[in-house]
Amino acid sequence: MFQVSLIVQKFGGTSVSNPESLKTVANKIIECKEGGNEVVVVVSAMGSSTDELIDLAEELSETPSPREMDMLLSAGERITMSLLAIHLNNLGYESFSLTGSQAGITTTSRHGMAEIENISGERVKEGIENGNIVIVAGFQGVNKETREITTLGRGGSDATAVALAASLDAERCEIYTDVEGVFTADPRIIKEAKLIEEITYDEMLEMASSGARVLMARSVEFGRRYNVPIIVKSTFNNGEGTIVKEKIMEEAIVRGVTHNDKEMKFTLFGVPDQPGIAGKVFGPLSEGGIIVDMIVQNVSKDSKTDISFTAPTDQSEEVMEVLSNLSNDLNAEGTDSDENIARVSIIGAGMKAESGVASKMFSILGKNKINIGMISTSPIRISCVIPKNDMNKAIEALHEEFISE
Amino acid sequence: MFQVSLIVQKFGGTSVSNPESLKTVANKIIECKEGGNEVVVVVSAMGSSTDELIDLAEELSETPSPREMDMLLSAGERITMSLLAIHLNNLGYESFSLTGSQAGITTTSRHGMAEIENISGERVKEGIENGNIVIVAGFQGVNKETREITTLGRGGSDATAVALAASLDAERCEIYTDVEGVFTADPRIIKEAKLIEEITYDEMLEMASSGARVLMARSVEFGRRYNVPIIVKSTFNNGEGTIVKEKIMEEAIVRGVTHNDKEMKFTLFGVPDQPGIAGKVFGPLSEGGIIVDMIVQNVSKDSKTDISFTAPTDQSEEVMEVLSNLSNDLNAEGTDSDENIARVSIIGAGMKAESGVASKMFSILGKNKINIGMISTSPIRISCVIPKNDMNKAIEALHEEFISE
Repeated sequence: MFQVSLIVQKFGGTSVSNPESLKTVANKIIECKEGGNEVVVVVSAMGSSTDELIDLAEELSETPSPREMDMLLSAGERITMSLLAIHLNNLGYESFSLTGSQAGITTTSRHGMAEIENISGERVKEGIENGNIVIVAGFQGVNKETREITTLGRGGSDATAVALAASLDAERCEIYTDVEGVFTADPRIIKEAKLIEEITYDEMLEMASSGARVLMARSVEFGRRYNVPIIVKSTFNNGEGTIVKEKIMEEAIVRGVTHNDKEMKFTLFGVPDQPGIAGKVFGPLSEGGIIVDMIVQNVSKDSKTDISFTAPTDQSEEVMEVLSNLSNDLNAEGTDSDENIARVSIIGAGMKAESGVASKMFSILGKNKINIGMISTSPIRISCVIPKNDMNKAIEALHEEFISE
Repeated sequence: MFQVSLIVQKFGGTSVSNPESLKTVANKIIECKEGGNEVVVVVSAMGSSTDELIDLAEELSETPSPREMDMLLSAGERITMSLLAIHLNNLGYESFSLTGSQAGITTTSRHGMAEIENISGERVKEGIENGNIVIVAGFQGVNKETREITTLGRGGSDATAVALAASLDAERCEIYTDVEGVFTADPRIIKEAKLIEEITYDEMLEMASSGARVLMARSVEFGRRYNVPIIVKSTFNNGEGTIVKEKIMEEAIVRGVTHNDKEMKFTLFGVPDQPGIAGKVFGPLSEGGIIVDMIVQNVSKDSKTDISFTAPTDQSEEVMEVLSNLSNDLNAEGTDSDENIARVSIIGAGMKAESGVASKMFSILGKNKINIGMISTSPIRISCVIPKNDMNKAIEALHEEFISE
């Protein structure tokens, strides 16, 4: 469809926090355009402006209508995108901005957490064909039936960028952010952490789901589904960043170590151990919008069992409410919650072909006298729940043994 | 169509500058709703937020694209309207907000100065029928052909409110502002100025066009065309305000005294006095977007004449450029501009039936040793251009003789 390569570039809030940083962003865009590419740009709201709007709303209501919150928050990207177009025009580059609705981004109707259903992108394509740099609002869309404006929730602008790249058949999607890419561990904790140059979609999905915050799982999923290479790199230097794609040169047994200290462990004691009990417990939690992560069901004793799981700390009130009802309904022996936990995970596509990775992980933790509370695995990930106080020590040891070696 | 009265209320930027003032506004709305009315609300952007957005754009470009400026500025009303809906919901009133586009407000395509062409208002009507307080973004609309977002320019939110009232067949349109209504003269200059309780559309149009800043002429024109009574009143007290309507009880010879000190006088000397010369002069000025106000053509001498007119001071550079070209093209003898002028006007429907009002005005100015430079009249208005330094003295004398008497 396009004679030259089409590249989608996305710039997040910290990259567009003021007119000065908009100029930096414009230089990145122009460099790409001058390199002989067509460029479509996706932007977030400026800096902390979304948080400021949320604060204003919360001054007026503790439970603002999600529909009105979307109307409110979708104003943020308009400001960034029009200012950026104005600046590019001023530098002599033809450019215009489009809202999610104008770009034909249709979503489900769930306000604040909508999912992209389709991108028609008519006006984007028309703009590209006319030689324009087209700027699209991230994080927002419109529901086709109700014509209501929706927002996509956390990581929404990344999702917009990758989905747009997929729908435009772009060569790649570049996600510009305030870090240099995806690291083998959190560089704030592990000084030796190295930038990952290449990573597969599957590995990146596991990294994102288990604590790496630089990319959200939903945008990686889009990339995988439509095979769009995603590059994560810094707005503020010229590093190569991390490329996320289908097939990569070097397979690693362990690509990275991730952690999550924003979850709690909840337990329901002495539940009758009968068929369907798990459904009775996790059904109501799921209906309550609670994101249950790891689950452990103890060995049954006297036809009773204990069920433990982890869930986000900021949902603990809701969890305890559901659990207390369940405890009554199921005639259980009580509930408990434990804030003092963290999860460490190792991720690598190479572990599929390698035996003994899990036992090596357990023995490293054991050598460091770290107690393992819960374990969960996927073909390319092993996660352990450990005491929160031991988290940094665990990451260090795992990074040292699996990666720095 | 509606069992109860439908009232459109409009709140300007100073009325919605922060969460506290939004609460005051909500009380006005609820009072109206509890009075048994259906209420549709039109809001402007919060306080100085529009100016702040303009400043941001001007940091990036001296000549920002009008299309992108509209995208940028239309974000402002979204913030106000959604916050207001959130607050009303919190107080137990069903309410939702609509953008200009969602409310079906279609306009001409002239960015920054679009005119409303039609208001379908489907979603507004639906909301009212379901008992909602519907909040609509002022100042903005969408062009039907291009689907581009437009803004209406100065006084645009008032125009939205009155046009919406007309299209919904509302009983009246209430314009809430930071003053108590329309006064017989500017109360900052004339302490004795009185609130005008009732005024006709025609008088209000002349007041607005000749300097009264509380209502813009365009919204009064809408009111007149569709016979929608407009009430101008304060957000911050419970005064009755000023009602603008077709027929009023008490006819006044002079309803008010207005002034305008934001214009300059421009002169083209020694133009050949031939048929069509005025068109040759004012054609190019009009094409240049210059708002020419009063015009005086001197008596011809040796087949040459001088043409003087007033135009806004902030357009003086453009005017002088056009005039200098004209002076060459028409072989004129030169140009001049005079900043030291002001215009004072008296307005009243009663002067149509009363003779000698103009001569009384001239003699009052003469008694006060104020030199009259130019004169223009309509059936219900007389305006004189005088030296700027004499303006306040002139307003005082005219108010004293025509109104306080």
